[in-house]
Amino acid sequence: MPKPERHVFVCTQQRPPGHPRPSCGANHGSFSLYAALSMELDQRGLFQKVQVTSTGCMGPCHRGPSVLVYPEGVMYAGMQESDLPAFIEEHLVGGKPVASLLMPQEDWG
Amino acid sequence: MPKPERHVFVCTQQRPPGHPRPSCGANHGSFSLYAALSMELDQRGLFQKVQVTSTGCMGPCHRGPSVLVYPEGVMYAGMQESDLPAFIEEHLVGGKPVASLLMPQEDWG
Repeated sequence: MPKPERHVFVCTQQRPPGHPRPSCGANHGSFSLYAALSMELDQRGLFQKVQVTSTGCMGPCHRGPSVLVYPEGVMYAGMQESDLPAFIEEHLVGGKPVASLLMPQEDWG
Repeated sequence: MPKPERHVFVCTQQRPPGHPRPSCGANHGSFSLYAALSMELDQRGLFQKVQVTSTGCMGPCHRGPSVLVYPEGVMYAGMQESDLPAFIEEHLVGGKPVASLLMPQEDWG
């Protein structure tokens, strides 16, 4: 397995119903997002360049799903499946983060 | 939450007993390693500088537990709790990866 050019971490933390803290997996649809991102990268032949990994909690649960890209260390908030084309084309391929989707600086700054 | 200087990802993937592929969580003791690393960083007052996140499978299951450090993109193989002092002091604080613990290049190169 080659070291990827970019590594995308998608939070799929789950918490039980009624838990006072929301979670990306239980409340913000991150499992679907993770699956859709993986399929889209596969279809575009990008799986050797971009690795996708699910994670436990990364912190800003109220703004999930949390998606983090390294080596840049860029965190996204509330990414939806409809955001994936821009995310993939502009950031993962083009190298320029999608400014409108970034996690606010107070949560990752 | 500040963006960390270093972000450590510890694979805690689990697979059922008898599964042909080993997993860091079920076969390589990564839950204990994750907990010990987190406690050690807390005791050293490093939690603002180093973030630790658990993950699903990162790939080289047969050499687990897999531990990945960004932004460097340095992957470790088979890290044990007894390796944590060197890992923390030399790499997470000192910035120099511990060469003897690195994932072989064929699995992350």
